[in-house]
Amino acid sequence: MKRILVIHGPNLNLLGRREPEIYGTVTLDDIDAMLSTYADKHEITLRLVQSNHEGVLISEIHTAKWPVDGPKMDGILINPGALTHYSIALRDALAATQLPIVEVHLSNIHAREQFRHKSVIAPIAVGQICGFGSTSYLLGLQALAATIDNDRSNA
Amino acid sequence: MKRILVIHGPNLNLLGRREPEIYGTVTLDDIDAMLSTYADKHEITLRLVQSNHEGVLISEIHTAKWPVDGPKMDGILINPGALTHYSIALRDALAATQLPIVEVHLSNIHAREQFRHKSVIAPIAVGQICGFGSTSYLLGLQALAATIDNDRSNA
Amino acid sequence: MKRILVIHGPNLNLLGRREPEIYGTVTLDDIDAMLSTYADKHEITLRLVQSNHEGVLISEIHTAKWPVDGPKMDGILINPGALTHYSIALRDALAATQLPIVEVHLSNIHAREQFRHKSVIAPIAVGQICGFGSTSYLLGLQALAATIDNDRSNA
Amino acid sequence: MKRILVIHGPNLNLLGRREPEIYGTVTLDDIDAMLSTYADKHEITLRLVQSNHEGVLISEIHTAKWPVDGPKMDGILINPGALTHYSIALRDALAATQLPIVEVHLSNIHAREQFRHKSVIAPIAVGQICGFGSTSYLLGLQALAATIDNDRSNA
Amino acid sequence: MKRILVIHGPNLNLLGRREPEIYGTVTLDDIDAMLSTYADKHEITLRLVQSNHEGVLISEIHTAKWPVDGPKMDGILINPGALTHYSIALRDALAATQLPIVEVHLSNIHAREQFRHKSVIAPIAVGQICGFGSTSYLLGLQALAATIDNDRSNA
Amino acid sequence: MKRILVIHGPNLNLLGRREPEIYGTVTLDDIDAMLSTYADKHEITLRLVQSNHEGVLISEIHTAKWPVDGPKMDGILINPGALTHYSIALRDALAATQLPIVEVHLSNIHAREQFRHKSVIAPIAVGQICGFGSTSYLLGLQALAATIDNDRSNA
Amino acid sequence: MKRILVIHGPNLNLLGRREPEIYGTVTLDDIDAMLSTYADKHEITLRLVQSNHEGVLISEIHTAKWPVDGPKMDGILINPGALTHYSIALRDALAATQLPIVEVHLSNIHAREQFRHKSVIAPIAVGQICGFGSTSYLLGLQALAATIDNDRSNA
Amino acid sequence: MKRILVIHGPNLNLLGRREPEIYGTVTLDDIDAMLSTYADKHEITLRLVQSNHEGVLISEIHTAKWPVDGPKMDGILINPGALTHYSIALRDALAATQLPIVEVHLSNIHAREQFRHKSVIAPIAVGQICGFGSTSYLLGLQALAATIDNDRSNA
Amino acid sequence: MKRILVIHGPNLNLLGRREPEIYGTVTLDDIDAMLSTYADKHEITLRLVQSNHEGVLISEIHTAKWPVDGPKMDGILINPGALTHYSIALRDALAATQLPIVEVHLSNIHAREQFRHKSVIAPIAVGQICGFGSTSYLLGLQALAATIDNDRSNA
Amino acid sequence: MKRILVIHGPNLNLLGRREPEIYGTVTLDDIDAMLSTYADKHEITLRLVQSNHEGVLISEIHTAKWPVDGPKMDGILINPGALTHYSIALRDALAATQLPIVEVHLSNIHAREQFRHKSVIAPIAVGQICGFGSTSYLLGLQALAATIDNDRSNA
Amino acid sequence: MKRILVIHGPNLNLLGRREPEIYGTVTLDDIDAMLSTYADKHEITLRLVQSNHEGVLISEIHTAKWPVDGPKMDGILINPGALTHYSIALRDALAATQLPIVEVHLSNIHAREQFRHKSVIAPIAVGQICGFGSTSYLLGLQALAATIDNDRSNA
Amino acid sequence: MKRILVIHGPNLNLLGRREPEIYGTVTLDDIDAMLSTYADKHEITLRLVQSNHEGVLISEIHTAKWPVDGPKMDGILINPGALTHYSIALRDALAATQLPIVEVHLSNIHAREQFRHKSVIAPIAVGQICGFGSTSYLLGLQALAATIDNDRSNA
Repeated sequence: MKRILVIHGPNLNLLGRREPEIYGTVTLDDIDAMLSTYADKHEITLRLVQSNHEGVLISEIHTAKWPVDGPKMDGILINPGALTHYSIALRDALAATQLPIVEVHLSNIHAREQFRHKSVIAPIAVGQICGFGSTSYLLGLQALAATIDNDRSNA
Repeated sequence: MKRILVIHGPNLNLLGRREPEIYGTVTLDDIDAMLSTYADKHEITLRLVQSNHEGVLISEIHTAKWPVDGPKMDGILINPGALTHYSIALRDALAATQLPIVEVHLSNIHAREQFRHKSVIAPIAVGQICGFGSTSYLLGLQALAATIDNDRSNA
Repeated sequence: MKRILVIHGPNLNLLGRREPEIYGTVTLDDIDAMLSTYADKHEITLRLVQSNHEGVLISEIHTAKWPVDGPKMDGILINPGALTHYSIALRDALAATQLPIVEVHLSNIHAREQFRHKSVIAPIAVGQICGFGSTSYLLGLQALAATIDNDRSNA
Repeated sequence: MKRILVIHGPNLNLLGRREPEIYGTVTLDDIDAMLSTYADKHEITLRLVQSNHEGVLISEIHTAKWPVDGPKMDGILINPGALTHYSIALRDALAATQLPIVEVHLSNIHAREQFRHKSVIAPIAVGQICGFGSTSYLLGLQALAATIDNDRSNA
Repeated sequence: MKRILVIHGPNLNLLGRREPEIYGTVTLDDIDAMLSTYADKHEITLRLVQSNHEGVLISEIHTAKWPVDGPKMDGILINPGALTHYSIALRDALAATQLPIVEVHLSNIHAREQFRHKSVIAPIAVGQICGFGSTSYLLGLQALAATIDNDRSNA
Repeated sequence: MKRILVIHGPNLNLLGRREPEIYGTVTLDDIDAMLSTYADKHEITLRLVQSNHEGVLISEIHTAKWPVDGPKMDGILINPGALTHYSIALRDALAATQLPIVEVHLSNIHAREQFRHKSVIAPIAVGQICGFGSTSYLLGLQALAATIDNDRSNA
Repeated sequence: MKRILVIHGPNLNLLGRREPEIYGTVTLDDIDAMLSTYADKHEITLRLVQSNHEGVLISEIHTAKWPVDGPKMDGILINPGALTHYSIALRDALAATQLPIVEVHLSNIHAREQFRHKSVIAPIAVGQICGFGSTSYLLGLQALAATIDNDRSNA
Repeated sequence: MKRILVIHGPNLNLLGRREPEIYGTVTLDDIDAMLSTYADKHEITLRLVQSNHEGVLISEIHTAKWPVDGPKMDGILINPGALTHYSIALRDALAATQLPIVEVHLSNIHAREQFRHKSVIAPIAVGQICGFGSTSYLLGLQALAATIDNDRSNA
Repeated sequence: MKRILVIHGPNLNLLGRREPEIYGTVTLDDIDAMLSTYADKHEITLRLVQSNHEGVLISEIHTAKWPVDGPKMDGILINPGALTHYSIALRDALAATQLPIVEVHLSNIHAREQFRHKSVIAPIAVGQICGFGSTSYLLGLQALAATIDNDRSNA
Repeated sequence: MKRILVIHGPNLNLLGRREPEIYGTVTLDDIDAMLSTYADKHEITLRLVQSNHEGVLISEIHTAKWPVDGPKMDGILINPGALTHYSIALRDALAATQLPIVEVHLSNIHAREQFRHKSVIAPIAVGQICGFGSTSYLLGLQALAATIDNDRSNA
Repeated sequence: MKRILVIHGPNLNLLGRREPEIYGTVTLDDIDAMLSTYADKHEITLRLVQSNHEGVLISEIHTAKWPVDGPKMDGILINPGALTHYSIALRDALAATQLPIVEVHLSNIHAREQFRHKSVIAPIAVGQICGFGSTSYLLGLQALAATIDNDRSNA
Repeated sequence: MKRILVIHGPNLNLLGRREPEIYGTVTLDDIDAMLSTYADKHEITLRLVQSNHEGVLISEIHTAKWPVDGPKMDGILINPGALTHYSIALRDALAATQLPIVEVHLSNIHAREQFRHKSVIAPIAVGQICGFGSTSYLLGLQALAATIDNDRSNA
């Protein structure tokens, strides 16, 4: 059994409502449901969080490693949204947990404005997946699960 | 009738209390009152918000386009304060609404420290007004109202 | 009574003739007329100048402060056109007058090519207004008039 | 049925032989076998190519779109190796095909030397996956297949 | 008697729990206790605050100068954590108080990654102390107390 | 029949008089004569202008598209001289005409000082020809004529 | 009689097949035929080479100056394709021949992405022609022939 | 006997009228008189020119070397004003004359804003003198006279 | 007992004599006396050195670790003065000793000119203290003593 | 006995034929003979390779460590030619072998154009020798032999 | 009567001996004699110092303002040699004296290598004179004397 | 017979005493002895100098070319230590001698911190050798001797 924290950063609550003719009608609830379905089939327990507050996200990440009660998480799947590009505080929170981190993005950040090419999160992540819409999340969950399995078999 | 969200970013709650011998005794309440007086005369309904929290500002901007109840806003007048220079999350929230955005600043940011010359908000705004103290807000409200009128007449 | 010099930089004589399906049919004469109408109502005397020559603009700015005859100006409203980005000579002329300067632009220069983001004029201006088409001028005239009034009341 | 070209760039032929105590004993043949197994189960036909020659890779990419005989490919999965960082010729070849491109890397290039952070390929790819070892390839193949399916359903 | 606000920025709540074999078992409570002991001996009253929220920190800083009730603070000792490197809003809040500010860091930020070398806070601080672990705080408190004493004797 | 404006920028009036042992004895009159001979043979009417004044060049360019009387030009062949590297006003004038622009240089600007490598004109030109002495002009005239013919056949 | 080597760099073999609705149906064969027709009329012998391999191009350039048998070339007309921007090896090969080099491009590289503005070839070429489609080649051949004639008359 | 062209660039006509309490009451006429007095004593004939037009300055420089009638100049003393920092056209005009050029500035340009530290003129001048107010001109005239004398004695 | 070398770099001999109305009348002798008093109370032996010569400072640092006779030092407290910003030789000398180094500055170097923000010494120091005038030294001595104590207890 | 691979990069086949009046008449064959003579005297077996193809060089390097048959090499002496400055693929191939690498250049690359100052190979080499013409090779061979001897004696 | 310290930085002792066919036979002694002759005529007492040691120069500068015995200097004329470009310690020494500083150079540093364009001394000097050989010194002495006279008359 | 000055820059006196378990027990005396042994066998007279003072090194270099008495040197072998990266004064001293200069380093400076990649000495040296420990010196001496021999045979 694996426990994974899934974090959606600022503005991701808008998915599906934001220009549906362009972005489609997939909502964040749909993504969460898709991830949950996958998790159920693969013995993964998810905790799903979205916030527009950097501080809330940081505290959630802390709790993943040092929960007040209950079991701690085995890894973190995160779409940091725009915080990707400047939130060193978020980076430090993730790094402090020493948990495996997988960073995902709906869009291909390397094909957008110059300032989106750089991720301050990526250097402390296991890896990064971007550009595949909601599929980025599903691939990220697979990648994280495989990483956890691999770490366990090497432990 | 036009509905406009007015956003004051971090530290703007200090206006009037902060070195009054330098900045004068105009408070944020005074600015809000000045804007409200203008709005009353020009069939504009204002929603006035100040916060020191990036996350609160983002959520307010979301609500302007996707209100829980009541009518949505027609435009956003924003003084992002220091978030002007780094909050890509705020930029993305504003851009997501596809509403006309007008960016205002009390001081002339282009005449201050180098790091204040760049606005990450400006590229997604209709325009920017800076340097005229509280008058920047009043001009910004006029500019936004004119933009909304113009968009309607072109629709 | 206030006296204001309005300066239109290179290429602005083309307004209205330049891709009217895009920029509309507002000509520089229309803008001058709009400004004059406003000026008449607010006890402002305007001097309106357009030139494609940096040297002519510099000499006009000199005359605003040191007229050969007649009264000197109380402020300068300027759309420097493309000179915004490199004419340090224009900047120095404006700065030498020690008059209040308001810089305006039809387009949002911060949303265009990188080289248009920087204004060499802005650091010596009271403030900058950009992005509102011909309305930028009208807002600029208001801002300049308010600045002059304010300076007088503080004198 | 989908046809996919899989390209392994320079030095990737060394996998498994290169410091096995560090990189493990997974060889390029193992990766190709893993991809083939997946392909067989999902109605995908693979063409698997490795070369240390930029020119050979470019010609292979051309053939994917304009084959001498036989059917053309539906997409390209590529690990460009070190060419990622400077081969604009490879980028142009990929872009010319107008096929969906998925870029994968064994290591997390964003966590390595500064010069590996930039990919000249990424801006013309659908997306990028890096950091998950041989799993990066498998995720990339899934992502590409999903993209092709999605494009077909939208066509 | 001196009143000092002590601010701990994001992630500092983790001290002692975060890799204790590396960082030791000194917790934030231990640091606060150490500072309090020193304060008690030197006629200093401390207010101790930690938050992962930029907005909360900004509001606390405002209250130091403009308290709702009770006396205002005489200085601020701050470890801004990762906000050191990008939070201009935090800088502006600190600068607005016109109180003496002392910036401290547990680690030597100038010996770490390039992006940690720059502090946006330092230019508006009296001084900076970094690299001495929890001792940085104690030295910072001494430095701040000395600064306040010195300012008073010069007043 | 095609009408083409040929513009020679600052200092080009010196040709032939300037170090003839190095630059040869070809004068600007010789170049104009060479161009006229070609034009006569190919049903092209030329207007030939040289000025050391940016403003005069801008006004000439305006007249090419919006003549006071007579027919407008079909394209512009320009050697902007040193204005190539900084005159955004000249660029904007050229761009405003929406006429095909061909940029030529006597010398190979990419083989000279670093500051001559960049042309602010080139991004709005059809193309650039440099390095072939007076032949650059003749090739430029051919290129422009071919462009105009091609545009007409596509219209 | 003049002998000229014409080199087409990587991806240029795709001309005509690559998005014909955009790039037209002119193929590389068409360009070669056009050049050959011109050459026949002007006593020029062409050697026409295309390769996607940097190494093949380098060796061809060597042979132009140091042929195994037969006469050596009098000049080189080259469209280096994407190698323009990074192949210092190609530059060195061209420079070693001390033959006159003319660089041509179908598109206006100065009007495309930033990384295409710089040519590592241009500093060792006689000149550069870009932006005129297949006409760039024809103009380049004229320019090269004129250069060779001029060098001979000066010899 | 020596003939020297003295050029004063944009805004220098304002000297003496521009903030006399700061810059003193020395006017450009005073400087010209001072230079003339020196010239009379040292067998130097001066031609004194001020213009706010780059084009006028360029043409004056041309005439210094290629006069319509009368003798040509032996050297040029120039205070290019703000054109110092960007007018490559002015630089090219000066360089074309192959006359000795001495560049002077009233203020110490290396102690002012960053953008004033760079002179595009200096690399083609004999030398630069700055920071000594009107004395800079007098020293510059001496330096230029000495250079001319020295060149003659070496000729 | 601890032995500490205190190094004062170039120009620090001027303290107290240099603009006393600004910098106060604290001389380097005063600072040395203050440090000695502290040292006496805490079982520390100081060696106090000031030099304007980089070479002398380097040799002193060598002697701290490899004395000709007598005991070696346990740590180095250094105010490198202006050498902070460029003397890599000083840095290498300090690093070679492998002794704990504490860097102090009277002024807040991060609040001064841009070129003073960077210390080439800091990356090899335990920590840095700046901005507290002569108190910086006293805090630095405490910090260094604590570091030595801590290292000993961990040994 | 030591086995060493000697690699000559692109364009080095031209040595001796390339401007012999400048570069002398030393050919690559001469260098190879000189190296062989030295090798024979010092119990070194050489494999000598020149190619203009990056891919061929990479494959040769692979074979040095993982030969198809026969013994593997003990070190690599390489003059990468122009690939020095951009071929990260060549670097990765060299690094993968974990053999000692010595980089040599005929010319002093640090005294030539700016773009030749940087070597992407050097960071993974034992050392670099440049500027001594063919002697660079001989010194490099000595250095490599000494390195191999030293490694063996430490093994 | 005026007292002036003349400082010659590193390598200036070589004048006259260093490539006399290029630099002429003027030695440092000649320059000193020339300056002394001028000084004698203008009631100036000179102290002439050359050193290759930064530390010696710094100490000399200190002594100019704070002499051990005898009168202090009224100004400093300095040719810092190569220290111009990096010796912040020299700059700080000069600035500490608050004496008027005049910086001179034999060559035109702005026309040489890029790294010689920047002077760290210039921002704290009254002015800079460069490019006129030994005449630079004579002009510098005049400029300094005039500055001292002017300061006295304003005192 | 050849005379060679060998210069060891700052901190090199520490060799052998500095972390012998890492750097080995080779001292500077050992290196000097090794060089002397080689010199004795090859008719070379060495002068061996180490100093931590830039000024001493400069004066030594001067004496190599302009000795007070005795013969002058034929070349200079220098390990500038950390001065490599910033001492333009050292560079100018070396360049002034017009003697052949060979630069050596014990470590591979191109594989260390970024600031060590640049040598201000290299552009005026014959060549550079780095990375081979004390062998770098021996190779450098050979290279210098060969250069002197070659220059003599060409003289």
